[in-house]
Amino acid sequence: MKHLLSIDDLGADGIEEVLRLTASFVEVSSRAIPKVPALRGKTVVSLFFEDSTRTRLSFETAARRLSADTMNFAVASSSVKKGESLRDTVETVEAMGIDALVVRHGSAGVPQQVASWIDASVINAGDGWHEHPTQALLDCYTIRTELDRPFDSLHVGIVGDVKHSRVARSDVLALTALGARVTLVAPGTLLPPSLEGWPVEVAHDLDEVLPKLDVAYLLRMQLERQEDGLVPSLREYSACYGLDIARARRLPEHALVMHPGPMNRGVEITADVAALPRTVITRQVANGVAVRMAVLFLLLGSGVVA
Amino acid sequence: MKHLLSIDDLGADGIEEVLRLTASFVEVSSRAIPKVPALRGKTVVSLFFEDSTRTRLSFETAARRLSADTMNFAVASSSVKKGESLRDTVETVEAMGIDALVVRHGSAGVPQQVASWIDASVINAGDGWHEHPTQALLDCYTIRTELDRPFDSLHVGIVGDVKHSRVARSDVLALTALGARVTLVAPGTLLPPSLEGWPVEVAHDLDEVLPKLDVAYLLRMQLERQEDGLVPSLREYSACYGLDIARARRLPEHALVMHPGPMNRGVEITADVAALPRTVITRQVANGVAVRMAVLFLLLGSGVVA
Amino acid sequence: MKHLLSIDDLGADGIEEVLRLTASFVEVSSRAIPKVPALRGKTVVSLFFEDSTRTRLSFETAARRLSADTMNFAVASSSVKKGESLRDTVETVEAMGIDALVVRHGSAGVPQQVASWIDASVINAGDGWHEHPTQALLDCYTIRTELDRPFDSLHVGIVGDVKHSRVARSDVLALTALGARVTLVAPGTLLPPSLEGWPVEVAHDLDEVLPKLDVAYLLRMQLERQEDGLVPSLREYSACYGLDIARARRLPEHALVMHPGPMNRGVEITADVAALPRTVITRQVANGVAVRMAVLFLLLGSGVVA
Repeated sequence: MKHLLSIDDLGADGIEEVLRLTASFVEVSSRAIPKVPALRGKTVVSLFFEDSTRTRLSFETAARRLSADTMNFAVASSSVKKGESLRDTVETVEAMGIDALVVRHGSAGVPQQVASWIDASVINAGDGWHEHPTQALLDCYTIRTELDRPFDSLHVGIVGDVKHSRVARSDVLALTALGARVTLVAPGTLLPPSLEGWPVEVAHDLDEVLPKLDVAYLLRMQLERQEDGLVPSLREYSACYGLDIARARRLPEHALVMHPGPMNRGVEITADVAALPRTVITRQVANGVAVRMAVLFLLLGSGVVA
Repeated sequence: MKHLLSIDDLGADGIEEVLRLTASFVEVSSRAIPKVPALRGKTVVSLFFEDSTRTRLSFETAARRLSADTMNFAVASSSVKKGESLRDTVETVEAMGIDALVVRHGSAGVPQQVASWIDASVINAGDGWHEHPTQALLDCYTIRTELDRPFDSLHVGIVGDVKHSRVARSDVLALTALGARVTLVAPGTLLPPSLEGWPVEVAHDLDEVLPKLDVAYLLRMQLERQEDGLVPSLREYSACYGLDIARARRLPEHALVMHPGPMNRGVEITADVAALPRTVITRQVANGVAVRMAVLFLLLGSGVVA
Repeated sequence: MKHLLSIDDLGADGIEEVLRLTASFVEVSSRAIPKVPALRGKTVVSLFFEDSTRTRLSFETAARRLSADTMNFAVASSSVKKGESLRDTVETVEAMGIDALVVRHGSAGVPQQVASWIDASVINAGDGWHEHPTQALLDCYTIRTELDRPFDSLHVGIVGDVKHSRVARSDVLALTALGARVTLVAPGTLLPPSLEGWPVEVAHDLDEVLPKLDVAYLLRMQLERQEDGLVPSLREYSACYGLDIARARRLPEHALVMHPGPMNRGVEITADVAALPRTVITRQVANGVAVRMAVLFLLLGSGVVA
């Protein structure tokens, strides 16, 4: 494995390999000194064309726990502004001798493009509405460790703005590759124009679906969707698709509530639901570091984790 | 000690403990390789809602000399802008497994709030007009090492915009806890509406006070105060409260001139006074790194300094 | 050697010393773990008053390969904005105990000024139209290793906006110090008002010069020059001074095409010329890290490279 561009590249076996390795790095992260020398002398550069301090910090923390050096190529202050082409930027950064580029970009396909230009490893940290594979991997790891049931017995509902969500796309690919049943729950305006080839079911009534779920996965509702006319109002969206405490009670007792963050409290989730024991959002964040350690180790490491 | 939120939390004994430990870290900082492994594997994140490169660099330098990893959560580029609540941001950062958060915020009390939400250590790096405890600690350390006299024999004049100064508040608390006499020297418009409970004296005539001081501590004069109508003009402020060379000659021979930086030369201090041997502003900066090493070590370390 | 402010400070012997040491660091950079402990415990701060992620990353990579700590004092978010003088900023940073300052500034002479104020080492990373010495050093290293001919047998053409180029100035100084022949190729409006004392020739007809060159060094064409009226239009500039594939064929077979980056493709260079084997722009970038390791080692190191 040289790059991590999409969940499709991994397949079920690749996902399982990442999840197995993640368990080792969860153990490393629990040590008094949560650090291994696995990637000493390697340099990981984050090249973020969209702001995301959360994701960037998670990758940086992961890289440092593996003893790699990290550098941040914030695009706002880079020569990309001066009219330098993306390709020149990327080739320049690689020429300095870096080992991996973590790329986030507002357009689908940019990480693939970047990977075609350089020899260093490329990790897709989110590209447009396309994919966000490490998010899906940390979601799968969280579901496995929290529920401890085989994926082919699980039913996951992904609720909200599926159309504009790279998280939804990567999660559908990963969960169904592992055998889970996935139902998308959203108004028609927030679903992709075609779902052909997506191995999912679709529902529009959240209340009816909730009792059948093992996981209610809530997507972030962008405030722009209201301006775009895709939902009549955020208040109406919440009334139909927001998870409040009454709705959360409709879930089976063991079921999880998940969210990729950052939450819009009061829109897709209420504050009291965010605070329930079944809501594992901070555990997703914690697992995210270990998943990214696993991915970096698979791409750049050799030998044992230590 | 888990957090450092205010000087009041420390008390005289706590302050003395920090100052004793600071001396060890001044020694470490003077070594050819000014680094100890004390905090290896710990991660210190700065979460600054107000720009302050000086304070952030000082904390980062301190953390690295203790072999901790540092990360910077600059809020301008963070999801706090996307409407994520402060609490979610902080809980997310903590979930990644960090050990200490260094928080600066424009509103008093935010570091206390943050500390109530998370298990990691919180250090107040300045909150509104409230407190800036590490500044007061480095000021006390500087006064002790430069003057080498017991605090209960010292008289410190704090000159300028006390009303809007977290530095003044923390310094008053720390200096009086150690037994020093403190006189605030300012026009009435730049003093807090009530000084009840502050164990200080007040004076309005700087020329009269100077001969009685061991330390003249000048506060930064914000240019906004003129626009707010709190001083007739900066020129008039300087005429009454700025320290020029003629006034500096009124100080006793041994007395120090101090300033928390950054200076407004020509307003609260003239360039020639800034260059006097008795002016110890760069020594304050140097001691700041050692004081922050001491604080980080007290919060996160165990065993010996090494 | 305490500072690196200009190529003139180095002289031919100094340049040769940097180039010799660079070869060692190219070897270090090719190791599986491209890191040596030479500068452990040293702190290198970049103080950039102009954006340049490329140059900053190159210095940071160099410093980390030498095991130094790096910090970034981005001026946009610094107290320089609050009216703090440059001198106070620099003295404050030095007081924290840093060992070298890498300074970029829009005005000629600022690094020299900074060096006069502090005891730490100062490296000029570009000052106005004046100098960019590490760029010239990496250019010389690249020419030597790619061509493997004595400099006094080489003819380098520097093409484009010489007038506003610190790269041109440093390259002329370095190349002529080593004995190379240099021809500036530009319209009169893009040449300095006087070339007195510059040991160079001048030409206006690129097509005529190309067959005589060992190196065609293309300068970046700033889009502002068109607005300033210094060139009739970028299209016309390209027609006369841009290197396209037809023109590149006029170069001798062994000759190199170089550029300091970032390129304006379609202006001073076409995409197909950028992709030729003789075009060594990414090798310049790669050598830049090793050259900066050599400079940092000369200024801060002691003993052997290891």
